Amino acid sequence: MKVSEAGEFGLIELLTREFGLPFPPGREQATRPGLLVDLGDDAVVTAPGAQALIWTTDTMVEGVHFLPGVTGWTSVGWKALASNVSDIAAMGGMPDLALVTLCLPADFCVEDAVEVYRGLKECCDAYGVRLGGGDIVRAPAFAVTVALRGVAAQSPDGSVRLLRRGAARPGDAVAVSGTLGDAAGGLRLLQAGVGREEASHKALIEAHERPRPRTDLGARAALTGIECGMDISDGLLQDAGHIARASGVHLRLETGMIPLSPDLRQDFGAEALDLALTGGEDYALLLCGPRVIMERLIVEGAGLTVIGQVAAGQARVSVVDGDGAERDYSARGWDHFPGEPRR
Amino acid sequence: MKVSEAGEFGLIELLTREFGLPFPPGREQATRPGLLVDLGDDAVVTAPGAQALIWTTDTMVEGVHFLPGVTGWTSVGWKALASNVSDIAAMGGMPDLALVTLCLPADFCVEDAVEVYRGLKECCDAYGVRLGGGDIVRAPAFAVTVALRGVAAQSPDGSVRLLRRGAARPGDAVAVSGTLGDAAGGLRLLQAGVGREEASHKALIEAHERPRPRTDLGARAALTGIECGMDISDGLLQDAGHIARASGVHLRLETGMIPLSPDLRQDFGAEALDLALTGGEDYALLLCGPRVIMERLIVEGAGLTVIGQVAAGQARVSVVDGDGAERDYSARGWDHFPGEPRR
Repeated sequence: MKVSEAGEFGLIELLTREFGLPFPPGREQATRPGLLVDLGDDAVVTAPGAQALIWTTDTMVEGVHFLPGVTGWTSVGWKALASNVSDIAAMGGMPDLALVTLCLPADFCVEDAVEVYRGLKECCDAYGVRLGGGDIVRAPAFAVTVALRGVAAQSPDGSVRLLRRGAARPGDAVAVSGTLGDAAGGLRLLQAGVGREEASHKALIEAHERPRPRTDLGARAALTGIECGMDISDGLLQDAGHIARASGVHLRLETGMIPLSPDLRQDFGAEALDLALTGGEDYALLLCGPRVIMERLIVEGAGLTVIGQVAAGQARVSVVDGDGAERDYSARGWDHFPGEPRR
Repeated sequence: MKVSEAGEFGLIELLTREFGLPFPPGREQATRPGLLVDLGDDAVVTAPGAQALIWTTDTMVEGVHFLPGVTGWTSVGWKALASNVSDIAAMGGMPDLALVTLCLPADFCVEDAVEVYRGLKECCDAYGVRLGGGDIVRAPAFAVTVALRGVAAQSPDGSVRLLRRGAARPGDAVAVSGTLGDAAGGLRLLQAGVGREEASHKALIEAHERPRPRTDLGARAALTGIECGMDISDGLLQDAGHIARASGVHLRLETGMIPLSPDLRQDFGAEALDLALTGGEDYALLLCGPRVIMERLIVEGAGLTVIGQVAAGQARVSVVDGDGAERDYSARGWDHFPGEPRR
């Protein structure tokens, strides 16, 4: 059987089983000793020594996660780290140490490798991350892997505060950070060969090339009492589905409340909403929690927008359109291997 | 300029410079705040919270680090972790948490991926390592990346004990664990299509497929007062050169003292010594320290052999042959990109 036949989740299940672990873990599944968060969430969290630490890793492969000539090498470096930072933010933590592995063809240009590192460095500086070493190996195609550790948020009484996928409760408000779909719009522009002369084009391309994960907001939310969150990297509907399944709840979203940037509206018109619902690489935060806390965060200028609410019932995501009709998007899934050009 | 033109170290220097860091670091170079060991050693060590933690990552790429059909997939999994465990052992620590990234072509067989994970799991079990998550991505060629954290040895008074490359002193004895060259011999046998019927063949192939890094010995040495060590992964001469340069000393080795297994002698005769000096993937420990401590470890059954001594003078490695002639091997270097089939 080939990977493409098993599908991503089937494969993960098979592989995880090799470790004697069920996947996805049941909601009542005991966390393994020494871990605060086990497999199946955005990241694994180890029990505190002095501090609880968060671990994640993410890879970008040329021709798979990005197209050379479309996404610049500096942006590849930035994004290789930013996608990991986003996972740390999604747990409510702050990143601090990265291991970087570069796979390079023998004829890969040094200048391009330097560009990748420049982007990594810029992102390290933006988020206070230190380089902790790595590996450089020869390979048939370019790839960059980052393993990142982060420190979990801790309340004044010393308790660890985390954002979990499985902590949404009926009655919670659902909120997202920033505006959605901009990165997907920027990618479309780059693929179409559109330049950056127009301010709107520039902004969308920047959103694609330099995503800025909200570690500030993640930590603040975790410390303010929000317990459920993840990052939106594969599109809002897809990722909302992860929370719905992990929490066993129904997420009801309203299209009219989805935050769209004026730039996206201007350049993509009616298509803007679809980009916001299904476009990838937003690296925004999706949070579920008491409405009163969300409102406090919004008043404090957190850059959050409430887009729906959590209801009891079968785990699913539905979207109420402008005309009041409810559409069920639960069936939409994502699978790495069938052939889409990015993860 | 292409990577192959810059060479591995030139490239690393260029890339590290992007982070504002010199490479290789000067011996008097200040360690960055928060780190006990900075870039340039086997691994980076962060200052203790409750415990000092060690971080390393290593990748195996199909066709580069191993040949499919020669090295089995289970062995690929084992070795992907074992090479990282060896780096932790080389610092005197114990590994405890691994992140695993698999790069897989869309037509890669699930059964083979399962085999890889099986090997990973066996090695995890052998060394008390927990899987801490990871990433699976599509890529043109198979690769597996492991990021591994370890806990540094700590003496009863709470001080952290580490094995450093730069801590060899004139007068120290030089010692290695186990026997050398067996893994390289095993690879030769596999490449020649030799089976495992003969006990010697079986043992050498096993050494190639299932290297067993000596975390026990690394920690014991560190706690007993040895301060200098690294793992032998690219061949004794090559790796001894790293210690010579990092410590600014002359390592004098004696061929007559290099430990060779009876199996290697039997199968490779006069070639056995060359395999021991230059063959890769031993994952043995190379230690430098007071002779009295080495002798105590040997008496206690540590599986160590003294193979030479540290002298003052220009940083280099020399080998005294059986006839008493001294040969200088300092010029021998290793460069990933010019075309050798493994790192």
